[in-house]
Amino acid sequence: MSELIQPRILKGFRDALPAEETTRVLLVEKLTASFRSFGFVPIDTPALEYSEILLRKSDGETEKQVFRFTDNGGRDVALRFDLTVPFARFVAAHKDELYFPFKRYHIAKVWRGEKPQAGRYREFFQCDFDIVGSDSEAVDFEILSLMKASLSAIGVEKITIKVSHRGIFNRFLSLRGLSDKSEDILRTVDKLAKIGPDETASLLAEIAGKDTAADILTYIQGAGNRPEDFEATLSLMEKMAGGPAEDTERMRKIRSLMEAVGIESSFVLDPSITRGLDYYTGIVYETFLNDLPEIGSVCSGGRYDNLAALYAKDRISGVGSSIGLDRLIAALEKLGQTSGQAGFTEAVIFNTESTDMAAAQKAAATLRARGIACEVYPDAKKMGAQYAWAEKKAVSWGITLANGSLELKKLATRETETLACPNCAADKILAGR
Amino acid sequence: MSELIQPRILKGFRDALPAEETTRVLLVEKLTASFRSFGFVPIDTPALEYSEILLRKSDGETEKQVFRFTDNGGRDVALRFDLTVPFARFVAAHKDELYFPFKRYHIAKVWRGEKPQAGRYREFFQCDFDIVGSDSEAVDFEILSLMKASLSAIGVEKITIKVSHRGIFNRFLSLRGLSDKSEDILRTVDKLAKIGPDETASLLAEIAGKDTAADILTYIQGAGNRPEDFEATLSLMEKMAGGPAEDTERMRKIRSLMEAVGIESSFVLDPSITRGLDYYTGIVYETFLNDLPEIGSVCSGGRYDNLAALYAKDRISGVGSSIGLDRLIAALEKLGQTSGQAGFTEAVIFNTESTDMAAAQKAAATLRARGIACEVYPDAKKMGAQYAWAEKKAVSWGITLANGSLELKKLATRETETLACPNCAADKILAGR
Repeated sequence: MSELIQPRILKGFRDALPAEETTRVLLVEKLTASFRSFGFVPIDTPALEYSEILLRKSDGETEKQVFRFTDNGGRDVALRFDLTVPFARFVAAHKDELYFPFKRYHIAKVWRGEKPQAGRYREFFQCDFDIVGSDSEAVDFEILSLMKASLSAIGVEKITIKVSHRGIFNRFLSLRGLSDKSEDILRTVDKLAKIGPDETASLLAEIAGKDTAADILTYIQGAGNRPEDFEATLSLMEKMAGGPAEDTERMRKIRSLMEAVGIESSFVLDPSITRGLDYYTGIVYETFLNDLPEIGSVCSGGRYDNLAALYAKDRISGVGSSIGLDRLIAALEKLGQTSGQAGFTEAVIFNTESTDMAAAQKAAATLRARGIACEVYPDAKKMGAQYAWAEKKAVSWGITLANGSLELKKLATRETETLACPNCAADKILAGR
Repeated sequence: MSELIQPRILKGFRDALPAEETTRVLLVEKLTASFRSFGFVPIDTPALEYSEILLRKSDGETEKQVFRFTDNGGRDVALRFDLTVPFARFVAAHKDELYFPFKRYHIAKVWRGEKPQAGRYREFFQCDFDIVGSDSEAVDFEILSLMKASLSAIGVEKITIKVSHRGIFNRFLSLRGLSDKSEDILRTVDKLAKIGPDETASLLAEIAGKDTAADILTYIQGAGNRPEDFEATLSLMEKMAGGPAEDTERMRKIRSLMEAVGIESSFVLDPSITRGLDYYTGIVYETFLNDLPEIGSVCSGGRYDNLAALYAKDRISGVGSSIGLDRLIAALEKLGQTSGQAGFTEAVIFNTESTDMAAAQKAAATLRARGIACEVYPDAKKMGAQYAWAEKKAVSWGITLANGSLELKKLATRETETLACPNCAADKILAGR
């Protein structure tokens, strides 16, 4: 026998055991149902693309992290590090086959060779949804509304979605002659929630002088951080940005749509939200769990002016959002809000020396036909082993067939009943759901 | 503006447009429901693993095809080329956390740098399901039964699952002193369906002599290829392999379980099925569509004696099967058996100059709450454009809100009705399903 190979996996990668994977797929199914209810369709793109496609727009940091290599055909290729760049390439490549406004969701793995740390992996799922091909505030609202609905679909009701508008901030900066410093300012403003107003002010003072720093701080702190302060904060922003314009009117329209649908209490206007140096040009947003805000945003995004500028002449604007699935799952586990479902089996047919396997398989088929997930324990092992196995799989019901009769046992209570046939057992199981 | 980049993708890779991806995800959802109904649970493993793990057992052909490179940390890594090797590594790594018999399904992408040709891609989905940790014929039967049930779940009823047993064939060869030539013989026998009995016989004669070749041909042609010839063929195999043993008894038991559940008419015993040089030791099987046998097997597998021999001391036997998802989808398309569903939207709320967007969004929310996937067309474009868009998305119903009234239009017939409220429209739409 040859030497054994240690069954190790790469640093920063991980297996998903059944319980974790079940949690993930059940969440994804609910999110997916939400996306579909808003008219979104799925697409898929290759995991591997030309490096030229994926990396043209990226900064040095991304380039360092990407899994990039030369394939057997001498091509410079890379594993995708997000789903946005492939989507831009996709829209440019297929614009004549698509219909606009086009709404897509895409839930798939991406890879980044980041330094592994708690909760950070080199392979992880992204869950993106975008609407491209419309400038309307209605689609801005739809994305926000879907963020609320999809999180609600997985049982996450206590959230705060912080919204702002990059265009209003740009007007504010331009009015003060700070447009050329906007990158530094955005980077600093982004830290407000983390480092607090005092330190933010002193950092801003270094960039823009003390008086302007105070001015910026007034702007980004708004007029209150409750949902009902929306208009007050918007008025402040509007005033400081030079008065009403399309951007502030858009925010008012979005707010009135939220009120029409009754979801306004989950949204606050927070001018410190900028999404850093991203390519957003309109509304931007981040989502926090009220019971666990310290883990950061679980769903973020914004409006962009030109998605596929690198690949196509046509301007394709849109608005999109991305759920941080791993972070969200970690948070739900911390909050005890995952289903904890270990599997799908509802009933097991136990196997004793006297079990007639044909009758057992027939009974299992009958239960499955009634919509009950069912297994036959294949070997006539000791009952203790069979019970232990059923417990690990969190099976609710056990069935024993012996001498033509059927015993149905509720495994949690060991309560047992003798029934006439598999269909009677199915009735009982369905009634007990 | 910088020069545009051609939005091309790598040779052998492809995008999935919404219609294709919708077809795929709907099929996968149905297959998944089947797997779960038999007690299977999902797992996941990394796309990227140490080359040492993935390639130790592989032949030169696999090695040439694999996407292998050195990562930024100097590790020799590769993209997985199947889901079996990672599963073996997974079971060895987690055997103390799992419960046996362990049933898992795994539907995920794999990569092979094959020469691209019609229907062959360098990135494709595999769909595997295995039961490990039991030697029982009951689990052999369960895999076969699940193959039938899962294909049935996606509407594929007319199939022939050809079953055989490697152990019986090995006895047959051993009795004739041909064990050391078994590789060549298996390879040749595998070609019977493709090249016919005459050419197979002459190839076999080169390996084993003319008389033995005739003998092998008698064995692999069996006693008839109808489901009802099962016992006749089994008796022939048994006789030629030296008499009854565990292997032939197992085949009889499996057949009787098929009869008990009433699925025996989808199965034939075909001794020419060997699965070539794979690592199978017990039953082996391939699945053909009766209306399109020429595309080859859409679901194959077998029993193996020791899954994780490379990585663990414990013997972990099992039985598994793999659906060739891409081939199956291509076949269903050819047979006109895919849903052709272009999306999920049931109703669109049209947008005219007089549409009150708040009322439209409220109506959409009402429909969604009733379980109807619904969109609001965001821009007040010409009605022709909105109808064309709805047609591309295969939306069934159009709603127009004007001056407090609601018009519901069946888009296929343009039949229109004036209704009092969004909930009335929901009633109508649900009734029309």
